Amino acid sequence: MWTPLIEHEDLESLLNDKGLAQIGDNLVNLCYSIAKSIVLHEAMGVKVRDSVLARAIRSTKVYDYMTGRCDVGCAGDAYEAIMAWLWMKEKVTIESLIQHLIPLLEIDSTTSRKREGEVAAAAFQSLLETHMKKLPHPRTS
Amino acid sequence: MWTPLIEHEDLESLLNDKGLAQIGDNLVNLCYSIAKSIVLHEAMGVKVRDSVLARAIRSTKVYDYMTGRCDVGCAGDAYEAIMAWLWMKEKVTIESLIQHLIPLLEIDSTTSRKREGEVAAAAFQSLLETHMKKLPHPRTS
Repeated sequence: MWTPLIEHEDLESLLNDKGLAQIGDNLVNLCYSIAKSIVLHEAMGVKVRDSVLARAIRSTKVYDYMTGRCDVGCAGDAYEAIMAWLWMKEKVTIESLIQHLIPLLEIDSTTSRKREGEVAAAAFQSLLETHMKKLPHPRTS
Repeated sequence: MWTPLIEHEDLESLLNDKGLAQIGDNLVNLCYSIAKSIVLHEAMGVKVRDSVLARAIRSTKVYDYMTGRCDVGCAGDAYEAIMAWLWMKEKVTIESLIQHLIPLLEIDSTTSRKREGEVAAAAFQSLLETHMKKLPHPRTS
């Protein structure tokens, strides 16, 4: 159905797909909102900050394939594009993404915003590392 | 996994679930973004306005069960809560929601924002009408 939207010959072009990043933004927010809702036993919506996703991707080898200057927004976009691609390629399900996040979200209703950001970044890093091998091969070696 | 988040004995309490509405906000944006991306052959993220979802729900019988004063934000929230509930209850899939929207989105890259809002509202109305029978029974008759 959406195959033309996710055609990428190499990792570098996926990381720079700004349209897919926008779809991934919605996907990441949906998964994190449900995971956090389950952990805190209360339905809620959360917007995951670029800084959280940037920290997550910068801690992985994927970040070595970002070309040119890349600020926090650009790194967060790359993370979002990856998640959209993995899901739209049917390499992960939304349920599996949520199930991966839940045990890693060691937060409660008293956790500070700063601490939650650190915990969330580590959880998103773990998520990416788990699925990294499913990504397109890099152009550069 | 998320059963406790979606327990609603009647339609009225579902329509007023503000937490579920926040999850539904992400879900609706994700579905609409992908549907629009497919229609326009270009990946993009879109935020569906409350006014669009409010118009959609107000055109259906579900709206009769909204209790008390209900402005555009409240009506949009009710729509979002319904979609989150239908999906989390596994009564619809994201793929089926997108597939329902696509043929109804008669827009192109030159469509005005106002016209797109009208088209989207009609598409979301059709979506809700299709799945209305799967909702919890109303408390009032």
